[in-house]
Amino acid sequence: MIRTPYLLFLGDAPDPLAAKVAQGIRDWRPENALGQFRMAGCKADLRLPDMTLTEARDAGARTLVVGVANRGGVISPAWKKVLVAALEEGFDLASGLHNLLRDEPDLAAVAAACGRQLHDVRVPTVAYPIANGVKRSGKRCLAVGTDCSVGKMYTALAMDREMQARGMKATFRPTGQTGILITGDGVPLDAVVADFMAGAVEWLTPDNDPDHWDLIEGQGSLFHPSYSGVTLALIHGGQPDALILSHEPTRAHMRGLPHFALPPLEALRDLSLAMARMVNPAVQVVGISINTAAMGEDEALAHLESVERQMGLPTVDPFRQGAGRLVDALAAL
Amino acid sequence: MIRTPYLLFLGDAPDPLAAKVAQGIRDWRPENALGQFRMAGCKADLRLPDMTLTEARDAGARTLVVGVANRGGVISPAWKKVLVAALEEGFDLASGLHNLLRDEPDLAAVAAACGRQLHDVRVPTVAYPIANGVKRSGKRCLAVGTDCSVGKMYTALAMDREMQARGMKATFRPTGQTGILITGDGVPLDAVVADFMAGAVEWLTPDNDPDHWDLIEGQGSLFHPSYSGVTLALIHGGQPDALILSHEPTRAHMRGLPHFALPPLEALRDLSLAMARMVNPAVQVVGISINTAAMGEDEALAHLESVERQMGLPTVDPFRQGAGRLVDALAAL
Repeated sequence: MIRTPYLLFLGDAPDPLAAKVAQGIRDWRPENALGQFRMAGCKADLRLPDMTLTEARDAGARTLVVGVANRGGVISPAWKKVLVAALEEGFDLASGLHNLLRDEPDLAAVAAACGRQLHDVRVPTVAYPIANGVKRSGKRCLAVGTDCSVGKMYTALAMDREMQARGMKATFRPTGQTGILITGDGVPLDAVVADFMAGAVEWLTPDNDPDHWDLIEGQGSLFHPSYSGVTLALIHGGQPDALILSHEPTRAHMRGLPHFALPPLEALRDLSLAMARMVNPAVQVVGISINTAAMGEDEALAHLESVERQMGLPTVDPFRQGAGRLVDALAAL
Repeated sequence: MIRTPYLLFLGDAPDPLAAKVAQGIRDWRPENALGQFRMAGCKADLRLPDMTLTEARDAGARTLVVGVANRGGVISPAWKKVLVAALEEGFDLASGLHNLLRDEPDLAAVAAACGRQLHDVRVPTVAYPIANGVKRSGKRCLAVGTDCSVGKMYTALAMDREMQARGMKATFRPTGQTGILITGDGVPLDAVVADFMAGAVEWLTPDNDPDHWDLIEGQGSLFHPSYSGVTLALIHGGQPDALILSHEPTRAHMRGLPHFALPPLEALRDLSLAMARMVNPAVQVVGISINTAAMGEDEALAHLESVERQMGLPTVDPFRQGAGRLVDALAAL
């Protein structure tokens, strides 16, 4: 569990996109984002208060979160200076970078000397169990995609926000680095050892109140040969009651695989249902989430209407329209 | 790669079943099994020459393989004495135990001092790539099961033996501890990190001659919620041309899951084909392997005949009947 609230480290971000982890935290957990720390040359700006380490500490920040992708896969000397100072100031550090904080001898030494924590959220820290498939109480919703990176995390977070606003019982359950940094906890599923994947998802979504919904962050796709095993572990460990189909309609081929076409939504629906029924015969597909970012407004709305007619399910782009209709569908289950 | 041939360490095996790894090596790679090393009280006997370390070394053995399950999850002082002496005598050590050789400080120190290798085959030693799904040359066969532990490894090894005898080009590709110890190489798939599972299978079964068959050791089951993700990674990484359906007809429920029934063979066929077609549209189910160990001869033969009629596919128990008909079906593809 990462201590909140955060000071978001944007470093010397070469462009706004490099700070998308920090942006995710600001967008989805603004109460966790006290301020931003920018270095000379930083091209990202989250429009949060710019704070020194001391100011942020005095305002109550507990963890400095590396909310930016680094260049060249190394933690630069310029970054180091800030990170070391933050540890000395009393901050924990959290990062989803490939190159781990703990592998930097100076950071590890200073953290140990100051009694501070280094959170590398790419690395599992829990000894997850083997999945047992036993029926759990509470309800679970999972977004499954025709491909990787089609908006599954965004969909779950938007549904979570809507459900909180309605006073429904709901918890977003992160399974990837960005999601874990947003909420401060979760399972880095792509880094879990094969035998324990489904068990890690069971661990993440335990028994709960009958009217409580876990909104599980989806990963990969049953149709994406590089990561399909991770997706199946999510379905079989997650024991979903409700599935959302996620799709990006303008993509020419599966992500990273120019020789693989995306499947039709009908195929995604049928295969996901067949897999999910093995662990929960009552599972239903309740709606469709389409990422229309690459379309103009008219084209997007026409496309959503057309998919809704074709599939007979509530179909929205939660970014354009909010997740209200998806939550209506959950509530009606 | 583990150096062969082996001296098989049976330790103080409490019964013959405890030495089943050693038995697998003796049965499937007799040329690797020079002799056995038994301690006082050993209740297993592979009917191999009993050898001292010196005798085995003089006969050419290069590695002492721990071919026995240990009691209580610890490497006992009595075992240690033999393992240390073996390192000093010039043997490498290989083991599939959960408690790793490398985690024993004395073994690690002696191995380093003697320049010997400790092979813990439960631990991946290769940085596997992410799978790319690109079509590979050569042919691949994979056994898929209605459950875990229904005879998939045995089926692949029996087909390998038959194909070698016929002069066909074939390689058994291990994906589990026992298989790796039998052949000296392979991928411990259940211990690979989630994102790299399918890539590890691609790595294990690279481009090959057009008439060469990789016989990939199956794992888990698409229907077993604890391990289904591993199975799907095998299918999507393995890119099989041929599937064999494996089943154990007397099992009352899925292994370790008393509340899950085994699926019918038709469901296994249809789901496995749907998954495998994503990476190889030409894939076919060529035969069925039934483990009839729990049946008498008449009952077993009647059952095999009945399944063959029901499914319209060559159906054998390779232990009773050999794998000839399965290999015929491969050769006819």
